[in-house]
Amino acid sequence: MIKEKINPANSVGVVKTQSFTFESLKLESGEKFGPVTLAYETYGVLNKEKSNAVLIVHALSGDAHAAGVHEGSNDLGWWDSFIGPGKAFDTEKYFVICSNILGGCKGSTGPSSINPKTNKPYALDFPLISINDIVNAQRHLITHLGIEKLLSVVGGSMGGQQVLSWLANHADIIHSAIPIATTIKHSPQQIAFNEVGRQAIMADAHWKSGNYYDGPFPLKGLAVARMIGHITYMSDSSMAEKFGRQKKGGAEPFKFTADFEVEGYLRYRGDNFVKRFDANSYLYITKAMDNFDASGGRPFSEVLRGIKAKVMVISFKSDWLYPAYQSKEIVKACKLAGIATTYCEIDSNYGHDAFLLEVEEETHLIKHFLKKIFYAYEVTGAYGE
Amino acid sequence: MIKEKINPANSVGVVKTQSFTFESLKLESGEKFGPVTLAYETYGVLNKEKSNAVLIVHALSGDAHAAGVHEGSNDLGWWDSFIGPGKAFDTEKYFVICSNILGGCKGSTGPSSINPKTNKPYALDFPLISINDIVNAQRHLITHLGIEKLLSVVGGSMGGQQVLSWLANHADIIHSAIPIATTIKHSPQQIAFNEVGRQAIMADAHWKSGNYYDGPFPLKGLAVARMIGHITYMSDSSMAEKFGRQKKGGAEPFKFTADFEVEGYLRYRGDNFVKRFDANSYLYITKAMDNFDASGGRPFSEVLRGIKAKVMVISFKSDWLYPAYQSKEIVKACKLAGIATTYCEIDSNYGHDAFLLEVEEETHLIKHFLKKIFYAYEVTGAYGE
Repeated sequence: MIKEKINPANSVGVVKTQSFTFESLKLESGEKFGPVTLAYETYGVLNKEKSNAVLIVHALSGDAHAAGVHEGSNDLGWWDSFIGPGKAFDTEKYFVICSNILGGCKGSTGPSSINPKTNKPYALDFPLISINDIVNAQRHLITHLGIEKLLSVVGGSMGGQQVLSWLANHADIIHSAIPIATTIKHSPQQIAFNEVGRQAIMADAHWKSGNYYDGPFPLKGLAVARMIGHITYMSDSSMAEKFGRQKKGGAEPFKFTADFEVEGYLRYRGDNFVKRFDANSYLYITKAMDNFDASGGRPFSEVLRGIKAKVMVISFKSDWLYPAYQSKEIVKACKLAGIATTYCEIDSNYGHDAFLLEVEEETHLIKHFLKKIFYAYEVTGAYGE
Repeated sequence: MIKEKINPANSVGVVKTQSFTFESLKLESGEKFGPVTLAYETYGVLNKEKSNAVLIVHALSGDAHAAGVHEGSNDLGWWDSFIGPGKAFDTEKYFVICSNILGGCKGSTGPSSINPKTNKPYALDFPLISINDIVNAQRHLITHLGIEKLLSVVGGSMGGQQVLSWLANHADIIHSAIPIATTIKHSPQQIAFNEVGRQAIMADAHWKSGNYYDGPFPLKGLAVARMIGHITYMSDSSMAEKFGRQKKGGAEPFKFTADFEVEGYLRYRGDNFVKRFDANSYLYITKAMDNFDASGGRPFSEVLRGIKAKVMVISFKSDWLYPAYQSKEIVKACKLAGIATTYCEIDSNYGHDAFLLEVEEETHLIKHFLKKIFYAYEVTGAYGE
């Protein structure tokens, strides 16, 4: 049943999360880890030539549900405004795949999954994973789906880190890459914000070194971590516009209630997040983000040398968490490596959240870029190479 | 005994914190609260005319100990580089006063003080105080010291908020004011960072609605609050310069240790802070900062109209917590009110911390400004009015 809020003309409609399990994954650390399950969704139809597949990779709090709704729910996928008939990722043309990452908590194997050796959740027995590990797991899924080469890999924020990992390590099986609002490696400030979030979780008496799955969850610590995140996702001026210094009605007797609307908003977002996210996943994923360095210690342009995939980089003016200068570093490295690269800094007020919200401009850029890649392939059989 | 690290040529040497108690203070809320004790220090000598007194007001984590050392300790006062013979606040010329604020935890009456009615710490029975209340308490101290008019009131950050409160409410007894790196009122982003700090404290199981004084203290929550603060006090680029992506030596077995130097730094600063600060004071003071609006809902220029005190506003280019645009709003309001106002945005890389660190440029500005005010007074008897 298509929900009322879904417009059948441009929605992928009701979708179902599927899952794929494979025996084992060799981690960057050398360790062999398995079995690994990835939850994923697909939208649109894979064409006969298997040449129209686009992989969408999600950010820190995302999951496999990128578009449409699940049966019996009204919750739209996290990037629904970008995926569907006629949208940026036009499901009449492209076959779109999105999977929950390794380490996540929405159907893919992560610290909250059952460790087959103990029949208890892994908790901190889960191995430290890297962004490259996450991407290697996705590659298993792509192979499973019978796809030899992806038309594009696209993602923002931590998704963008995955895109850069695809580009650096699997460029032979992608025709293009769209890293959005991301960075080759985290700055100390980015690490610091993640670290404080981790500290907030680990400070929660219920965290118990990660062994909380049979008791109360470290919800308060996780909520604080999420609140810190939300401040960094918005800009000073978008917050000013949204909240001003509005006070909430109905003063309560307790002294440190949320007087200001911005306080109420943060508490609401924090409390909501803990219903759907696992604290240990938050620790593992943020650590993977902090440890990530697409350049592996070399100049990134050297890593990219010889790559034929095309790249489009997008950043946002008011994004101070992943500032434009970091995107420009990606562009510079790509150009130095001789990659056909296009760059756009969108003049948005939304801060880092802009990658989810600037639908019109991003749609324009993505549509045009994908069409060019796809058209070149259709005509020459070589994606414009 | 003067400590070795003290240079007798420009240090105020060994100092002692004093205290002053008065019966009661009428709070903005209407409540009468008392008795109130303020801890304070003074440096230099009050001249016969009592015309050389400068009040220094501290920021969130500051205290009365602004310069010199205490007997048996090597800890320099928090603004020692600015206070002493030949320094910005030249103690050969000026009589410098600094008091711990009402609500604080370093000798002044605050939530950790004993409530005479119960013989137990106030905890959350302490009244909600405002920046104006803090300043009104300081005014009692100034009167107690026999000073009718202050040469200047100076402070950065929350200290700057107090300076604006002095200017808005007690302009008749100050000849000048130097608000540094501050704002007429907090933006939603500034409120949000404080709110997350409060949430971190209140999320700590040891906080127990503020009644922790006989049990374990909410140290982990307070440390997280302080870590958030420290990120906002530095700039992206000063962090990059100080830490880069350096990893600490000696990997420990636990997975979420502080790998990066920036992580170790934050943990160190957080752990250090909890030894010297009270969590409830953190709640009360940050709430006073968030609630403060020097303009009282009117245009600030109207509040200031007719004021004869001179003003110097200082901001710092890389300060993103109290960005320069907020200082410019102060300058604009002062000029619209006809106040003789001078403004300098110092080109510093240190972020908000710059007000503690840019000694050379600030010293130059402050020395010159104070001299002009003082000289005008000495010659005309009217401080250049």
